[in-house]
Amino acid sequence: MPLVDAVELRDVATAALKGAGVPEGGARLQADLLLDAELRAVPSHGFLRLERLVARIGNGVASATASGSHDWRGPGFVSVDGQNGLGPVVAEAALAAISPAAKSQGIAVAAVANANHIGMLAYYAEAIARAGQVGIVLSTSEALVHPYGGRQALIGTNPIAIGVPSADGPFVVDLATSLVSMGEIHDRAHRGQALPEGWALDAQGNTTTDAEAAKAGAIAPFGAAKGYALGLAFELMVTALTGTALGRDVVGTLDADQLCNKGDVFIVIDPVSGQGEAIARYLEILRQAEPADGFDQVLIPGERGRALKAERLRGGVPVADSVWSSMQRLRDTALARGEI
Amino acid sequence: MPLVDAVELRDVATAALKGAGVPEGGARLQADLLLDAELRAVPSHGFLRLERLVARIGNGVASATASGSHDWRGPGFVSVDGQNGLGPVVAEAALAAISPAAKSQGIAVAAVANANHIGMLAYYAEAIARAGQVGIVLSTSEALVHPYGGRQALIGTNPIAIGVPSADGPFVVDLATSLVSMGEIHDRAHRGQALPEGWALDAQGNTTTDAEAAKAGAIAPFGAAKGYALGLAFELMVTALTGTALGRDVVGTLDADQLCNKGDVFIVIDPVSGQGEAIARYLEILRQAEPADGFDQVLIPGERGRALKAERLRGGVPVADSVWSSMQRLRDTALARGEI
Repeated sequence: MPLVDAVELRDVATAALKGAGVPEGGARLQADLLLDAELRAVPSHGFLRLERLVARIGNGVASATASGSHDWRGPGFVSVDGQNGLGPVVAEAALAAISPAAKSQGIAVAAVANANHIGMLAYYAEAIARAGQVGIVLSTSEALVHPYGGRQALIGTNPIAIGVPSADGPFVVDLATSLVSMGEIHDRAHRGQALPEGWALDAQGNTTTDAEAAKAGAIAPFGAAKGYALGLAFELMVTALTGTALGRDVVGTLDADQLCNKGDVFIVIDPVSGQGEAIARYLEILRQAEPADGFDQVLIPGERGRALKAERLRGGVPVADSVWSSMQRLRDTALARGEI
Repeated sequence: MPLVDAVELRDVATAALKGAGVPEGGARLQADLLLDAELRAVPSHGFLRLERLVARIGNGVASATASGSHDWRGPGFVSVDGQNGLGPVVAEAALAAISPAAKSQGIAVAAVANANHIGMLAYYAEAIARAGQVGIVLSTSEALVHPYGGRQALIGTNPIAIGVPSADGPFVVDLATSLVSMGEIHDRAHRGQALPEGWALDAQGNTTTDAEAAKAGAIAPFGAAKGYALGLAFELMVTALTGTALGRDVVGTLDADQLCNKGDVFIVIDPVSGQGEAIARYLEILRQAEPADGFDQVLIPGERGRALKAERLRGGVPVADSVWSSMQRLRDTALARGEI
């Protein structure tokens, strides 16, 4: 895989999006979200999605310019109609609305419908925590996960991110409630690698270690019954707050031609002051804790990704050949048409 | 184990608490919380705790009468000083304060410090959902859980409950972020049963299947690295909002003589209307889904506990001999002293 400079990646992606009619600011923000995923080694949320996003704009299921309309249901609750805008553009506008509300009210929530895929939730949770607030971010997704004890994909991967400020910088957790990502399954299928036992079911609902068969099947929830319960609770909660689709009715984040009908929820809370030092001290106790047999150290969630990000910002980002060519082609087409 | 009528259990527990100086309403509420855990077959949160609670009042680390003082940091955020009151009494007052706030603001949070153990979180999440609102409830606890890749108990069992209204009644998830409860470990030790591999470490941080050794050690987080990350995020979030203790500094829910310094957080959100039917339909799809090999059906979280509760309300509650005797003794002492 070629190592490409992060700034060049972002500029090429920004150009491609501008070629599709996205204004400079929105194009840069969307490119930043895709880059962030690549920097943290989550390529399923990275530039792989760029070509599809441009196609979605071309097909009229994603708006190049919308940033969402806001309907305040109370001083602490804004319902956002994303107007099919780009996920990060709609999300950023929603957060800009509720951050000051959280400051004055103590807590505020944005419930977003009709936005495209917002990318890695960690991006938002980190921004909230960096601004000194506590953040909870939830999204629903296409049904790729089987219920615990079930055979069929009926639940979204329903990720959650939580951001908490500490004196050493933001603490950020971002995880899907699936055991692994469908991206990981696709990656294994691409390499011809078997899956570990327990990761997935095939289309008939039987356990399989064949990654190709799993692509048409279902991924296990993480943590067995408990992870299933949490993923389901997140899905219901997002729908209760946004009115968006449930289960197999969710479409539009993995295809190029359907309106995106999942939901996103952002909760921002103003913390009591002075806890940042205690939290940093506690995290240091965990970092210094004696590791179990077979482990080098106790890791703090999010820190490996942050270290990798710093390294890739300095040394370049490995991007699949096919993805990098596609990005350049999109940029070149935009240039040739004089659109940027 | 004797089967005891639920009403009798509650009356005996109420009398015991009144004997310790708790007013009628608070005694009944606290007894209800303990009973609720017994009805749902979670005896670790049941009447086992009654004797210790009475001792805590006697020792001056729990107040028989306090219901907490409220400091509104904004129209959606109340900081509650529990004044060492009984957990359910403080929690109920906090919820009564934020439920109308959630209605008018859209969302509201109560951050509770200095309250005693509030009991099963499901109780509150169910009440919130039954009132037509969405609830998230978090508590921290004594450090009983080792970090993923660690050897020592450094994190609380940090449970979460989520309640979402549906047309078929409240959907409620309530789970600890530990793989199992310390109550389960004690129960296995009591019966002389071995633990399954992976549940726990001994005091030296080595994996063990000896329940007795595990009592002095640490429980695994559920769901490996992801469950660890979530449990840790919940602990930090509660501290950021309440200013309460972290990790091994948390005391007062398992002993009789230390002030309780964990925290509790209640978030109540007013949902968009009309989603109850869609949520009920989706849950029915899950209920009817074809089960995997080795399973009879796909379960909806909380429903087994609710069915058991109905059964026990009709047919009686199995209570350990020692617990039932202790409850009666406490009641009789109170009667003899003319305190009730």
